Formats: sequence, structure tokens, C-alpha cells
Amino acid sequence: MKTVIVGAVAGGMSAATRLRRLDPEADIVVFERGEHVSYANCGLPYHVGGVIADREALLLNTPDSLRARFDLDVRVRTEVAAIDRDRQAVQVREIDGGRRYEEHYDRLVLSPGAAPFVPDLPGIERAMTLRSVTDADRLTTLIAEQRPRTAVVVGGGFIGLETAENLRRRGLPVDLVELDRQVLAPLDPEMVTAVHAELRRHGVRVHCGTALTKVLPAAVELTDGRHLDADLVLLAIGVRPETGLARAAGLAIGPRGGIAVDDAMRTSDPHIFAVGDAVEKIDRIDGETTLIPLANIANRQGRLAADTIAGRPGRLQGRLGTAIVQIFDLTVAVTGWNEKRLRAAGRPYHAIHTHPASHAGYYPGAQPMSLKLLFDPHDGRILGAQAVGGDGVDKRIDVLATAIRAGLTAADLADLELAYAPAFGSAKDPVNMLGYIADNLRTDGQHSLQWHELDDALADGATLVDVRTAAEHSAGHIPGSINLPLDELRDHLDDLPDSDLIVYCQVGQRGHTATALLTGLGHRAINLDGGYRTWQAGNAARPPSETHESLYGRRPE
Amino acid sequence: MKTVIVGAVAGGMSAATRLRRLDPEADIVVFERGEHVSYANCGLPYHVGGVIADREALLLNTPDSLRARFDLDVRVRTEVAAIDRDRQAVQVREIDGGRRYEEHYDRLVLSPGAAPFVPDLPGIERAMTLRSVTDADRLTTLIAEQRPRTAVVVGGGFIGLETAENLRRRGLPVDLVELDRQVLAPLDPEMVTAVHAELRRHGVRVHCGTALTKVLPAAVELTDGRHLDADLVLLAIGVRPETGLARAAGLAIGPRGGIAVDDAMRTSDPHIFAVGDAVEKIDRIDGETTLIPLANIANRQGRLAADTIAGRPGRLQGRLGTAIVQIFDLTVAVTGWNEKRLRAAGRPYHAIHTHPASHAGYYPGAQPMSLKLLFDPHDGRILGAQAVGGDGVDKRIDVLATAIRAGLTAADLADLELAYAPAFGSAKDPVNMLGYIADNLRTDGQHSLQWHELDDALADGATLVDVRTAAEHSAGHIPGSINLPLDELRDHLDDLPDSDLIVYCQVGQRGHTATALLTGLGHRAINLDGGYRTWQAGNAARPPSETHESLYGRRPE
Repeated sequence: MKTVIVGAVAGGMSAATRLRRLDPEADIVVFERGEHVSYANCGLPYHVGGVIADREALLLNTPDSLRARFDLDVRVRTEVAAIDRDRQAVQVREIDGGRRYEEHYDRLVLSPGAAPFVPDLPGIERAMTLRSVTDADRLTTLIAEQRPRTAVVVGGGFIGLETAENLRRRGLPVDLVELDRQVLAPLDPEMVTAVHAELRRHGVRVHCGTALTKVLPAAVELTDGRHLDADLVLLAIGVRPETGLARAAGLAIGPRGGIAVDDAMRTSDPHIFAVGDAVEKIDRIDGETTLIPLANIANRQGRLAADTIAGRPGRLQGRLGTAIVQIFDLTVAVTGWNEKRLRAAGRPYHAIHTHPASHAGYYPGAQPMSLKLLFDPHDGRILGAQAVGGDGVDKRIDVLATAIRAGLTAADLADLELAYAPAFGSAKDPVNMLGYIADNLRTDGQHSLQWHELDDALADGATLVDVRTAAEHSAGHIPGSINLPLDELRDHLDDLPDSDLIVYCQVGQRGHTATALLTGLGHRAINLDGGYRTWQAGNAARPPSETHESLYGRRPE
Repeated sequence: MKTVIVGAVAGGMSAATRLRRLDPEADIVVFERGEHVSYANCGLPYHVGGVIADREALLLNTPDSLRARFDLDVRVRTEVAAIDRDRQAVQVREIDGGRRYEEHYDRLVLSPGAAPFVPDLPGIERAMTLRSVTDADRLTTLIAEQRPRTAVVVGGGFIGLETAENLRRRGLPVDLVELDRQVLAPLDPEMVTAVHAELRRHGVRVHCGTALTKVLPAAVELTDGRHLDADLVLLAIGVRPETGLARAAGLAIGPRGGIAVDDAMRTSDPHIFAVGDAVEKIDRIDGETTLIPLANIANRQGRLAADTIAGRPGRLQGRLGTAIVQIFDLTVAVTGWNEKRLRAAGRPYHAIHTHPASHAGYYPGAQPMSLKLLFDPHDGRILGAQAVGGDGVDKRIDVLATAIRAGLTAADLADLELAYAPAFGSAKDPVNMLGYIADNLRTDGQHSLQWHELDDALADGATLVDVRTAAEHSAGHIPGSINLPLDELRDHLDDLPDSDLIVYCQVGQRGHTATALLTGLGHRAINLDGGYRTWQAGNAARPPSETHESLYGRRPE
């Protein structure tokens, strides 16, 4: 049986090598339009920045090494121009020389990937992208030869931020342009404030809410009319599935514009499979199709396509889109849905914000972290999580992604037995704490108030009580709050007005204790989730003119 | 309602503060025999070593702070001498002054903890232990005032190793004495080799298979007759549940010698609860009782006892005993059962060894790691895991502990969506790889051979094939192996004998590819799990005289 694979990176190469391990005598031909196979495209920004100094380190395999180890027939700089489904053959064109020929297949695996989106703007030809080793070569050559003195990165997603950081490493001043009002769309606004600050702290000028209108010889023009100097322009505004070949062959395309596949990676043609960034995935939270261009998912799909071809049972679970990015000294990781998306979908949820240390505070080197957990208020199902900080951010998101995959509830997190020693965590790990808080919300009927709900609650006549120390209060507080430190609260219960009370502390923990005390004594009290820190971050994320409703919609009446 | 709590560290304090949050008007009295409450005993070795320079950092709370914040009546240096169950009262004695009185309770929570085991040996009075702040004070005072020049640590468990490391930090030569043939009993022998090497590398002389017979004025004597210089002797040979009070009161004691409790922390007396190191837990793997003296479990139990007292539903899941320890530059973490224990219990299992990098190899700073996964061959249920390495060891064990808790199978690990960027992991994370390998074992019928099964297999006439490069083979190989590098294997198939083939490479991955090729072509081939590295570690762990059977028993026929 002969399998033809189109695309020799992540998904395609996983399919090829897996198929070989399953069948030593299978006939496997891999076509790759580019020059390189199986390269580490997640490392490209770091090669540009010099972190990965050795370019060869990115090239994990060559056609020769793949032939020797896996008996694969890999043909680079060879484009598959068309699929003749009736005859089960692909039309092939060699890019150098233009020779054309036909290759028969019994099974075809499409792994064409995705292409950087390039808007049709005047002067856009000068803009570069960073998706392949060839792109990286072009970029490093330009930096070395033309010695640009200014750079504009367009797009504040993962690749945009990684590239901005690495251009800073090369000593370039960097302006970052982002159409949305924040970078890193997977984060909710109050979680992204620290990212904006970190970018600024490292000399990246962030311009949100604006976009490119044209590329000039040494600058770019923005929608607000401003010009930014730009000897170098790097576009990172997302990728589009490469579906040309599939469309031309009449394969079904999904609602999101990716190749439609079933949970065994089969397209609408039972002899043709598709994997990787070009295909639509199933979202684990709502079961709808989605596009998630991530290497780990591509690898998983490639293996599954090979399994299916070899007649082994298997199916892919819905995807969470777990992702992580380093931004200078900050680590940001996400899994599942964010609050913006839950709101937009009209889906009920509880949100929890915490600000734990990466490990026990009494052990040196603990780093601050902010965590956000979203879960279903009815069945406790975890819907998403976000983490921003340093050490241990990756660990907490991985544990939470595992918990979502396994169907644990938010309250179940309290009971996870995580590895504890003071250098690694806390006796109550930040993940356990999320579970404890979720358990409180579940069983106490004790709701918490979100930062973006505060103004409405105050407008309704509630009194805001800061239970931090007087020193903390003086150093900065929410306007209009009275200060009654937790440790003195019992002695000042008579000082409290007979209104609804909104209680807050620095991160939410003392606020919880105070709220428990007050409600236990018959007051109507609610804790401000995440405390002053989350409130402050949320408000910093919001331009002065903006109302809460535009961020999260009105809270349910 | 009045709740009396005995013991003001981890479990007791969690119970007290939780109870207060649940009931602002509850009457709560806490008795603590020692001087300090709610201190960070996991930090004690690091305080001795100077890593946690500030002693105050260990004292998380004082009776005054607990009164102010939680309205708790905490009485230190006050011993509960007896429980009068009929009258629901405890007999109390103040250690300073000896005043005695009685305190009534509606509910009693016992959190007496565990005491270091001190064997009855001549001279043992001179030996110190490290369990409380008072112990730490004694130890630092002795070091400061008597300026010991030699130290012997007895016991190679978590506390023993942490203390040995911290005594080295203080510049003391350290001899470590361990009765077992290895330190860190939760690890299997091939996983502990790196630990022994790390200890030696940092100047800790490890003496396994021997024990103390007496403590002399400036030395200790061992069972093998040797003397070791010891100005300072530190005993860390485990702890025993403090059950005196419970026994005297006639409360049920479990088969392991801890206080017996149900899954809501209730003892055999419905008015009395018990939590923490003194109580027996349920082991998640076999459902039997077990003793696991860990602070995070104690905290969890304390909270649950409070919930139960307050009439809130809740029950504790079986425990895995997830644990972690830093040993100089090495991190060791475990969860669930190890192979030794599975063997001893006659429980069937598959074992997988891998040696991944902490993150993508092409990104700087990747550190080597060894992982071991144990799972049920029939239903795929994960039974345990071990990890030894540097960065990312804690993360992988936490993910695996979460997977066990959630009932995922080993093959499910392949499909976990873990956060991937090259600084944090690999597109196929080490945890995913464990899942892929488990999936192969499950569906291929392709078994792998364990390092301790190799000699038997060779004795049965199998041929051992090293598929690494010639250079790797020359640098060190398993005696009797022939070298046929993987990339040349297809051209030398005729050179293979017509016997069973055992294939190995460095870590098991190329061996898997070679085995798949060979079996696909009709050979009888099996891969050596974990490759040369695991074999080498396993053999280094074994004294020359020792047979495999004594380590793991004979393999099933």
C-alpha cells in the first residue's frame, strides 16, 4: 500500500514516521514545497534573537536522515499542484526545473499547514513574516546586511510577542501594533495588564486599537494617521489554513475555513486524510469546530492519521488549545475558554482570581503569579484557566489542562495530591487553593464579586470595606472604600453601615475570611474576587473612556 | 458548640481556621504542647542550612495573630494528658508551672502529629532529631557553639537527605547511614542511582545496608563494626504516629498503628476527629490503610474535619503519597506505587522508562530527566510514577498525580494538551511520550524487556543488538551485544542470527523503531525499556553479589 503525504513538518512527519513503525514495508512518499523538513518552527523567533545561535539546531531531520532511519522517500522543493481523486493520484511539480509528474496513492495525507495572513495594503511587499526557516533566514540576513534601526511588529499574538522580544534582543527599538485593545487575545483584560507592563518595561512600545494602513519605505502608517519608523516590518497577525489544494479537489471545508476531518482525521474522501494547522478541530468546551494552529496537536493528529491508515482504532478528543508564551521575564499560559468568550457565548460561569506565590513564601526565590479559573456554576466543570507569572506557571496550567481533560470539577482541585516541598509549591498548592475557593462558592452560596461588577454594585448603594492594614490602604486603595483591618474587624462591627458590604483585601484571601465572619454574623457581605490586585489590573486594562459593559457585557440582573 | 483541637500545626490549624470561617461564633480552643504554632516544619532543614536565614520566616502564626484574625484561643506549652470520653472533656496540664485543669468539648479534633523514631541504643541521648522549631534551634545552637567537625545522618529518607544537604551547606563533612540498600525507599533501584551519585558528588558519603549499634562520644558504631566520626548525630529514620492519647482513651487504632478514621475524619468515637500524621489514610491504589506523613494531606484533612463538624458534606479520596525532594542539583518526585511494591504485592504491571529533556533540545538550558511510569496491563490504570532530574520534574509528577486521581489511563496521557513552547516542553511532552509508549504496549502486543529481566533472557539464548552508532557503542555497551546502528539496520538484516533478538539503544526510542522494523519483517524482537541508560542505572544500583531476583523476584514464566 502506498501512502503519499503532502507537507513534511510536524503533522506530516509524525504521520510518516508512525506509519513506518507500524508497517516496515509500506511505500511512503512525502512531498514538501519548502526546502526544509521537520524543522522546529517554534524555535524560529529565538533563532532570530540569537538565543538559539546554531541554525542547524532547528533542522531536526533531512531527507537523507529520514531515508536512512525510516526508509522515507522525502522530496523537498516539490509542490503537489492538484489531486485527482478519481484516479487516486497527485500532480506534482518540481520547483527547481519545473518537471511535472504524477504520483499514485492508496492513501493521501494532507499536512499543508497554514500561511501567515498578509493583508492587501500598499507597500506590504516589504513586510516580512516568520513561519519557516526560509523566513528566518531572510529576517536574519536583512538584520545583518541592512542594519535596520527601527522595527514594527504587527500583531500581538504569540508569534508577534516572541518576535518583538527577540528583535529587542538584537538591539532594535520595537513598536508593536495590535488592532484589539490588548495583546494576547486568549487572556482576559485584567490578566493582560502585567503583559503590557512587561513589554513596556523591556522597551517595546505597544500601540493597541490601531492597525496598519500602508507600509512606507522606512515607516508604517496607522489607521489613526500616525506614522511609526520602521526599517523592518514584521507581520504576525495570524495564519490561514492552506486549503487551496483541498478546495480544488472538492474536499469538504469546515465552517471555520479549515479542511473538515472526522475524529480519525479522515476528510470527506475516505482515501484522504488531513492533519495539522490546515484542519478544523473540535473544541472541547462546546463541541464546535475551531482552528488551533499548534505543533503538539499537529503531531498528535499525524500519529492518529497513520494509526487509522494502518487499521488501528483511535479517535481524537476535543481540543483545549493549551498554550504558553515567554515574554521577557513573564510567562503566560492558558487553557480552554476565557471569560470574554464565555460572556459572548452567553454561557454561565464562575470566575476565580488568585495571586499566589510560585512556592512557599518562606523559601527563597518565590515568584508572584496570577491565576484565573473559570468553571460551570451548575456542575462545577472547569471551562478554562489563565496564568501569568514566572516559575510554576507552566506547571499549574498543565495540571489544570489535565484536570479539564479528565473531567474533574473545580472543587476536585482541592483534593489533588501535588508534589510539595517548599522549593516547589505550598502545602496548599495554588491549584488546591483554586479548588478550595470553588468549593466555597459551590457550597456556601457565598458568591464573590468580579472586578468589572464593582461599579454597578457601588451604584446600587453598597459600602466598600478594605480589610487590609492601614499601611496597605494608604499605599493605594479603591476610591470610596473605608478601611477596617481584618484583625480589628471584630472590634468594629458596630462601625459598619447597614448596607450591603463589599469586602476586599490585597488578593482575596483576607477578604474571604472577613466576608465569612460578616455573613456569619448576619451582614450582607460579598468578597471582591482577586482583591485589590485584580481590581487594579482590570482597571489598568480599561481605557478611561470605556465602560465595563463593553468589556464583559452587563452583569445578569 | 465548643470544639477543642489538640495540636496547632498543619492539620490542627487548618481545622481551627476553617471552622472559624464556617462559624464566626463557634467556641474554639487549641492546645499545643510545643512552643510554636502553625510553623513551617518543611522548611526546618533549610533553616539549619542557612537557606532560610530568618528563623521568624518559619513561624507563620502566633497565638496572638491567631486570636486577632480568627478569634482562636490557642494555648501553647499546654499538654492534653487524657480524654474523658464519657464526660466529653480533656485533662490539660500546663508544662510551665504544671497547672492542671479540665476543658469540656462538644467536638474534639486530634492532630498530635508524629514523633521521630528513636531506637533504644547506647548513647542515643546524644542523637538529635529535626521535627520542630525547637529541634532546629537545638541543632543550630549546637553547630554554633560546639562547632562539630563531623556529622552522621542516620536515615536516607526525605528528611535525612534534606538535612544531609543542609549540613554540607554548613561546611560539615557528612556520612549518611541507611539500613536499606538504597536511599529514598519510594524510588526503584534503577531510579535511585542518580541520587547516590549526586550525594557523592556533593561530598555526602553514603553507607547503605548498615545501621547504628551505638552512639559513642565522638563517633557512631555500625552493625558491620565500622566506626564513623560523628561530633553530631542526626536521626531521621522515620516517624511514628503520636497515638498515646488516642490509645489511652480507647479510640480504635488501625492496622498500621495510626488512629483509625473514616473518610470524613471521624474516629471510632463520633465526637472525636483526628487528622494529620497520626491517622491512617486510605491508599488510592489498593484501598488499604497506610501512613503518609505529609503536610498537604494534613491540611486537607484538617479542613475536612472542620467541614464535617460544621455539617457540610465531604469525604476524602484515597491518597497517592505524592512527594518531592531537592537533593543538591537533583529533583526527585514520586506518586503512587513503585515497582518494588507492585512486585511484592503480586500485582501485574507494565513499566516504562524514558530519559527525556526538560524542554525542546534545540532551546538552551534543557536538562536531562528520567521518568518511570507503572500501569495496569489490563485496564491501563496508572499505578505510579517516578521522576529524577532538574527543571520540570515537579511538573511532570503533578500532571501524572492529577491523571491518576482523575482515573486516566496510561494511553490517555498521549492526548493531554500540555502547554508547549520550546522553553517549557516539547511538542510531544515527556508525559505525552509516556502515553505513546503505553499505547504501543497496549495495542501492538509489543512488550518491552525490563533491565532486570535481561540476564534471564540472554541465558535463554537471545541475541543482544545495540542499534546505537558505532561511537556510542565504543563508549560503553552491554556486554555481549553486537552493534548494528539503526540507520544501517535495513542493509544488514541478513547479518542477524535466527534467535530471539533483544534490541537496545541509549534511551529506548531508536530501540523501539528498530524493534518495530524487525518484528514487522518477521523477526522475534523485543526492545530493552529505557535503553542503555536504564540498564546501566539498574546495574549500578545492584551490588555485584546480588541477583535480580532479590531485587524484583523472578519474572513471570
